Amino acid sequence: MFKIALCQIKVEDDKYKNLNKAISYIKEAKENKADLVCFGEMFICPYRKSLFKSYAQEEKNSYILNELSIAAKENNIYIVAGSIPEKENDKYYNTSYVFDKQGNIIAKHRKVHLYDVEIDGKITNKESDIFSYGNNITVFDTQYCKIGLSICYDIRFPEIFRIMEQKGAKLIIIPAAFNTITGPMHWDILLKSRAIDNQVYIAGVSCARDCKESYVVYGHSKVIDPLGNTVGSLDEKEGILYSDINLDYISKVRKQLPILNHKRSDLYETKIK
Amino acid sequence: MFKIALCQIKVEDDKYKNLNKAISYIKEAKENKADLVCFGEMFICPYRKSLFKSYAQEEKNSYILNELSIAAKENNIYIVAGSIPEKENDKYYNTSYVFDKQGNIIAKHRKVHLYDVEIDGKITNKESDIFSYGNNITVFDTQYCKIGLSICYDIRFPEIFRIMEQKGAKLIIIPAAFNTITGPMHWDILLKSRAIDNQVYIAGVSCARDCKESYVVYGHSKVIDPLGNTVGSLDEKEGILYSDINLDYISKVRKQLPILNHKRSDLYETKIK
Repeated sequence: MFKIALCQIKVEDDKYKNLNKAISYIKEAKENKADLVCFGEMFICPYRKSLFKSYAQEEKNSYILNELSIAAKENNIYIVAGSIPEKENDKYYNTSYVFDKQGNIIAKHRKVHLYDVEIDGKITNKESDIFSYGNNITVFDTQYCKIGLSICYDIRFPEIFRIMEQKGAKLIIIPAAFNTITGPMHWDILLKSRAIDNQVYIAGVSCARDCKESYVVYGHSKVIDPLGNTVGSLDEKEGILYSDINLDYISKVRKQLPILNHKRSDLYETKIK
Repeated sequence: MFKIALCQIKVEDDKYKNLNKAISYIKEAKENKADLVCFGEMFICPYRKSLFKSYAQEEKNSYILNELSIAAKENNIYIVAGSIPEKENDKYYNTSYVFDKQGNIIAKHRKVHLYDVEIDGKITNKESDIFSYGNNITVFDTQYCKIGLSICYDIRFPEIFRIMEQKGAKLIIIPAAFNTITGPMHWDILLKSRAIDNQVYIAGVSCARDCKESYVVYGHSKVIDPLGNTVGSLDEKEGILYSDINLDYISKVRKQLPILNHKRSDLYETKIK
């Protein structure tokens, strides 16, 4: 059993303000005995195409990442740093960094599926104009269990969740920025179905809604248990959601409804190429 | 565009009564201009372990299958014959037969995942005591589109739905017998998530509820569209649900939200072994 904190912060067009707010949330989560704290997609930078490049961080020389490392160490807490625009050479990525309790970067996930859609003229988005594709399915180890990590649109691809389960993930964290069109349509059901199919906990973390932005994020950060029940959920406003992750409960669910043992691995498989 | 009819019949312990009821439903569906009619899992035999062997049909010598073939031809309608216990040599299968409008058997699906669970003492079931495993993922062609077919517990395995989508299915039919414990938990969300992930229509067909049986089926046959919206749904009682399957709508959804094109087939794959 361990405790996670989903921090749904309202992002402003000021990376240092956002960083300071994130650090104050990390402290608050620690005071409330969280073992791991996570943030939404683009929690340091408004989800606005015109800003991604100017907000981008280079891993070896990033004030933001350095401050988050210090916060992890000072608070003795794991941090899943939602996502930030990352720059490497002349390429940009939508990247989530993970810090251990000593402040080391122990994993990074570059968004594997970029969000290029056009829905009835309501949502038009082309992330691939800016970002390059990540090429790894990410599972990292902690003192509690293995944890999978994907970003937003990645959630629509059941293959990577199956692969994370097969790699041993018991909790999968999804920093995301669903919008007010696709959020009500699919956010809840996608989180639940990934939990049910893979019998893991799923934590979907959004930033808070800001109706002044042209891309309006949905909010509704939530944690789903391995049977698809909602452990807890926020609304669209700023806040923290705490949730216990009960590894014994996963074992119980997997024993009662042994779908992972009933997979017909002799007939089909999902695998990394 | 074509029209399907989901027949949710109340099954009795009399195979000829059940057959006659099914045939009268086929006629009614035809009068209402359905092009394809489908039934629930074990629509000829109560879902009762002690009855499966005595109700089993041998394909080459089956009065039930012969009568269904005649009904398909007389009514010029496709029939997806839910499932029946099938006997071949000394083995038994939970099998769904598909008839074309000329009464030919054009496909059969033997349940690939057998339902062996024990949930909190509420549901204890071990299908594999009776049945052998099917070994094929089933997609068949019709004059309208390709149609995938799986049975009940098969729905819990996202791999076979991905494979059916990859084989070109635009509609997937799932004769099922969820119960009053797992039905409220997971029936709706599983149907919807398979539709959303694969951008296909999903038709889940149950028999009607009979509270006198020890295994009480859930009912709630329903059709889900490729965005996860419910096209129509029954309650637990006997009835027919009609639904149009709009292939142009599938194309529209796939164009707006091109997740099937965004699969990272360079990174991962789901495939038949």
